[in-house]
Amino acid sequence: MTRKIAFYGKGGIGKSTTQQNTAAAMAYFHGKKVFIHGCDPKADCTRLVLGGVPQTTIMDTLRELGEEAVTTDTVVSTGFKEIKCVESGGPEPGVGCAGRGVITAINLMEELGAYSEDLDFIHFDVLGDVVCGGFAMPIREGKAQEVYIVASGEMMATYAANNICRGLLKYAEQSGVRLGGIICNSRKVDNELEMMEEFVSALGTQLIHFVPTLFREITLFKKPSLTKRQLSSTTRNVTRHLNMANLPRKF
Amino acid sequence: MTRKIAFYGKGGIGKSTTQQNTAAAMAYFHGKKVFIHGCDPKADCTRLVLGGVPQTTIMDTLRELGEEAVTTDTVVSTGFKEIKCVESGGPEPGVGCAGRGVITAINLMEELGAYSEDLDFIHFDVLGDVVCGGFAMPIREGKAQEVYIVASGEMMATYAANNICRGLLKYAEQSGVRLGGIICNSRKVDNELEMMEEFVSALGTQLIHFVPTLFREITLFKKPSLTKRQLSSTTRNVTRHLNMANLPRKF
Repeated sequence: MTRKIAFYGKGGIGKSTTQQNTAAAMAYFHGKKVFIHGCDPKADCTRLVLGGVPQTTIMDTLRELGEEAVTTDTVVSTGFKEIKCVESGGPEPGVGCAGRGVITAINLMEELGAYSEDLDFIHFDVLGDVVCGGFAMPIREGKAQEVYIVASGEMMATYAANNICRGLLKYAEQSGVRLGGIICNSRKVDNELEMMEEFVSALGTQLIHFVPTLFREITLFKKPSLTKRQLSSTTRNVTRHLNMANLPRKF
Repeated sequence: MTRKIAFYGKGGIGKSTTQQNTAAAMAYFHGKKVFIHGCDPKADCTRLVLGGVPQTTIMDTLRELGEEAVTTDTVVSTGFKEIKCVESGGPEPGVGCAGRGVITAINLMEELGAYSEDLDFIHFDVLGDVVCGGFAMPIREGKAQEVYIVASGEMMATYAANNICRGLLKYAEQSGVRLGGIICNSRKVDNELEMMEEFVSALGTQLIHFVPTLFREITLFKKPSLTKRQLSSTTRNVTRHLNMANLPRKF
């Protein structure tokens, strides 16, 4: 059976890096079939898996070539370890509605049968800054069953995480979606681990993993001082911890 | 004549802190009359000016009490040095549209005559992560004439700043709105000043001020190690530099 998972988080928190590393670990260490549906208007949810190449988005294809041009061949790319990738994309800056784009993109993928039954995991990677109705789409009507929120000890990150939980509560009953837990992508905030433990306990959920700052620095700033060997061991270590096959399935 | 200014920036970048300190400096050092219209769904654009007290938002009032309940008495508060404050607020998490809320709130304030002619400055404080049509409202139809973007050397912050500029270009011709410049709220990124100088030069604009990290730490984390005296001198120094009365008006 396919596990449908939504990764939410404030923009810039590292949710896409975390999500893609999890996908890579599932494929590499466990031989799982993964499909990533990026739902961030920045369209940066699949780039790491595709070797750094930005992908043509569904919204761009719709705008430029029309609906008939959107097929699994044109918008779905295959990356690292056969991971399938699609990006919703966003509206033209200053015009239209980003949330509406998420709804359109998911509906189109369903119509095209892109979420095939042989998949082990479907990842929805969703921006959680402004929880408009459109960004809640992946947790409505049974699209995703599990939600993981990427956060940090920074005020705005926990604010966004809390807001996402409020939205989640609204749909939990009708769609059966459940919060799997919080992943902390460290920002080196004072007492960050203690703060996050208090936060997850207040939410009544669990801290999936505390990702060290080193990892963020590698992926975002590509610190030239890190050797290839250090990079590889850190990445492997983090992905192993994020391996969600070992997580409790109870909610 | 009233100068209508929009402050844009990615969530968590410090745009509201910057905007409110600018308002406070205009009122305190120059005796100007300032009106702040917060357009961030988080409704945290006026809290510093109101002494830490969160304000009842227009959207909350609309939802709970209906349109007749929205008057200048119910939703406009007066804070530090007679600065007038209003918050648009946001939708219920997971439902509705945050951009639509911005449009509704600005229209209501215009109908109520809240933007009175005796004001020297109107500040629109706007979230710039997702530049949907609603968040572009303050730069459409002549609502704001000048835009300042708060950014930092972090990738996502410059991405958002660039996106806001793309949206701005679209409306510059029809509404006459112009980019005043970029304010860098430092995140201690390596070579941050050089990066920002390159960025503003690529945009063809100017770097208004480089705000030191110390300031961010004071406002966001309230570092207990800082003395009151240090805090006061830092704040005064920053606000003096951000005083926009001294900025070139040419665009």
